[in-house]
Amino acid sequence: MTASLDGVLARAEADHPLAVERLKAFLRIPTVSTDPAFAADVARGADWCVAELKSMGFEATAMTTRGHPMVVATHPGPAGSGRPRVLFYGHYDVQPADPLELWDSPPFEPVVVEGPRGPRIVARGAVDDKGQVMTFLEALRAWHACAGGPPCPVTVMLEGEEECGSHSLEPFMEANRDLLQADVAVVSDTGMWDVDTPAITTMLRGLVYIEATLTGPSHDLHSGLYGGSLANPINALARMVASLHHDDGRVAISGFYDDVRPLPDRVREQWSRLDFDERAFLAAAGVRSGFGEPGHDAMARTWCRPTCDCNGILGGYTGEGAKTVIASKASVKISCRLVADMDPEKVFTQLESHLRARVPTGYRLDVRSFGRNPPIRVADESPYLGAAERGLERIYGRGPVRIGSGGSIPAVGSIQRILGLESLLVGFGLDDDRVHSPNEKFELSCHRRGTLSHAAILHEIAQLRA
Amino acid sequence: MTASLDGVLARAEADHPLAVERLKAFLRIPTVSTDPAFAADVARGADWCVAELKSMGFEATAMTTRGHPMVVATHPGPAGSGRPRVLFYGHYDVQPADPLELWDSPPFEPVVVEGPRGPRIVARGAVDDKGQVMTFLEALRAWHACAGGPPCPVTVMLEGEEECGSHSLEPFMEANRDLLQADVAVVSDTGMWDVDTPAITTMLRGLVYIEATLTGPSHDLHSGLYGGSLANPINALARMVASLHHDDGRVAISGFYDDVRPLPDRVREQWSRLDFDERAFLAAAGVRSGFGEPGHDAMARTWCRPTCDCNGILGGYTGEGAKTVIASKASVKISCRLVADMDPEKVFTQLESHLRARVPTGYRLDVRSFGRNPPIRVADESPYLGAAERGLERIYGRGPVRIGSGGSIPAVGSIQRILGLESLLVGFGLDDDRVHSPNEKFELSCHRRGTLSHAAILHEIAQLRA
Repeated sequence: MTASLDGVLARAEADHPLAVERLKAFLRIPTVSTDPAFAADVARGADWCVAELKSMGFEATAMTTRGHPMVVATHPGPAGSGRPRVLFYGHYDVQPADPLELWDSPPFEPVVVEGPRGPRIVARGAVDDKGQVMTFLEALRAWHACAGGPPCPVTVMLEGEEECGSHSLEPFMEANRDLLQADVAVVSDTGMWDVDTPAITTMLRGLVYIEATLTGPSHDLHSGLYGGSLANPINALARMVASLHHDDGRVAISGFYDDVRPLPDRVREQWSRLDFDERAFLAAAGVRSGFGEPGHDAMARTWCRPTCDCNGILGGYTGEGAKTVIASKASVKISCRLVADMDPEKVFTQLESHLRARVPTGYRLDVRSFGRNPPIRVADESPYLGAAERGLERIYGRGPVRIGSGGSIPAVGSIQRILGLESLLVGFGLDDDRVHSPNEKFELSCHRRGTLSHAAILHEIAQLRA
Repeated sequence: MTASLDGVLARAEADHPLAVERLKAFLRIPTVSTDPAFAADVARGADWCVAELKSMGFEATAMTTRGHPMVVATHPGPAGSGRPRVLFYGHYDVQPADPLELWDSPPFEPVVVEGPRGPRIVARGAVDDKGQVMTFLEALRAWHACAGGPPCPVTVMLEGEEECGSHSLEPFMEANRDLLQADVAVVSDTGMWDVDTPAITTMLRGLVYIEATLTGPSHDLHSGLYGGSLANPINALARMVASLHHDDGRVAISGFYDDVRPLPDRVREQWSRLDFDERAFLAAAGVRSGFGEPGHDAMARTWCRPTCDCNGILGGYTGEGAKTVIASKASVKISCRLVADMDPEKVFTQLESHLRARVPTGYRLDVRSFGRNPPIRVADESPYLGAAERGLERIYGRGPVRIGSGGSIPAVGSIQRILGLESLLVGFGLDDDRVHSPNEKFELSCHRRGTLSHAAILHEIAQLRA
């Protein structure tokens, strides 16, 4: 059976009203992974995905993990084609829906409502990540209907613990390397530039997260009796934290920027054409003035520059009113966002050394690590990147922009480290989709064109040699 | 009815076991003044004091204030004696007991345990200030039992807000000048030199206490999406705190030391004879190395030099594990200890200006004041000071040393300013009493000899002309 891409796209277009109904059915299953009360629903969500994949000719199963099931499905593609195998990754679990009272409609009763950009579907998981998962499942369905299957070999892996720490993901991948082997990964869990401009996220920041606790006196002291005679752990910790940055906003940790390369001119040029509205970006955070590394705007500061931020600090008396105490200890949570070529282990060591060098004589610093994820950068010259760009251009009539994202997607790091695959981050979310918030939504135009895009990207990848 | 001092002292000695039981009953009332949840207990503590004072022949009442009740009791003393009236001041409220998990026994279930110096009583308030209050109440009880009343006119004022800012004290004193008129004040809220060497504190540090809250973004942000693009309120607050000191330990607030005078040679000489053991002083805090203003030892640093300490800090995520958040706000409690001739209003303004000058552009700093108390210094030539010295010498067999104290007793400043009285600061605490900390204790030998001392001091003051 042979099929033209045009036929597949026409089929997906015609099927879209039914695709919306299928997405609704998926959204009605409350797959809240972090809350044990929903465990049976999460399992039901996995089974739902398995049934969908089987209906498209996949060999599919919900595989047991220590946590929630991992949906894995494989399709051989056209016999003996030698075409690259694509691994699609997504997650079928969702965030809790609370605070419920802020939803305009029940979070697990999806509704389509009219918005400024046309109809949108509102429900928990509408975009993160059920709606995005359905864009590539519907693309596979269209290929199945028109051509008996996808134009190249395909593996689908859908996780059920992305919203609760992905604890099973790496052990599962380690144990199933053969099953998951592929040539490139495609991940739909990111956003577009705007509703008419597709984007491929080619840079994701990594993360080093620590908690540091400084202990001085053996017990809390009266600030009158001891004040002035010894190092106050809160003041000392504040000095340690302050020392992490220069006055101008640059991180002051020795060697921190050693592996940070300047942005390639080509990317810088492309970004400068994006018309990034820094003012609006900051206004959404309730802030009038940005602050950070000199010589960079907020886009660069969050996409391609590393950071060092405190995420929490605690010490001494924090109740109402006054207590004249010198605390025995004080602690701080600090995280660094890393960019391409920075090594999380190295940064962890630099950060820890920086802090340890500033501990008052005789005081103790305990440092705990809460995760180290590598930064991600898709090679500019990757043929898969080119294929994805051509696929998106076909649907949107304009090439996608290559963007960065300040956040981390741990699965992408795991896919790189364990399976040795680069990931194409092709997503169809918008900034105002209310991810993790009440009234989460997904534009139906994004859902429709996302489906068409994945169908076209598969076609383009199928033209490449594995 | 006449009585010899010897008889009174013998009576107090014999009654000591019952005095310990009375102190326990007092300590069982959790008079935590800073926490509104304990308001009824604080009122119950006041009533308990009133009942005790009535049983010693005083006219006593718990007077209403805007905050917690003020216990006031008066006794005319011997009819027409023309002897000086003594105003005893103490406080019946206590600090919060947290962190509860660090107590070896429940903070409001007093226990007597054996220590290296004999039995001690352990409970919140054991020494600060319930145990100390009971030393003069038990002295008054012994005088009442042997002589029908004290040897001179006595007024007792017990405050219920000493640990939460003494907000009602000054308005109360202003409104009740006549009721409180006296010739000298005696305050028991300070320490001895060591367990066998009594002390009179002739210098007390003042206090300025603030809470500063820095608000930046309008809500908590994702540290991946925004990290690096705006000032992190926790990092910014840490920089503000760090800027309060130079690297060598000196306070860096502009003008802070302008009114600080060097110690008079005579006092410096007396202090040098005290054989202050800095190592032991720091060891009691669990610290090996001191740190503070260069050119001063720990005694000077805590007795006659001003400070600036953080008492609490809070911001962002402080639970277990990691949360990648940039907090909207962060807050810190800061207090300055002041020494003679420094003006609390001036220091408050200097501190606030210092912080405000370092607020990131567009961010808001809210500063709340939790009290401003002047520093105190008692005149060397006071006859009441001589009387107190003779009374202490009688009990301890050695004269007291005149010392400084790093703490503040706001009431002493108010008594000086509003009632025009100087205060004899005669206290029986020890450095290792864990004031404001878990397992606060009071040596029973200090409690016993403190009682005897107050009985003897009353006798000595009764010999003076008003």
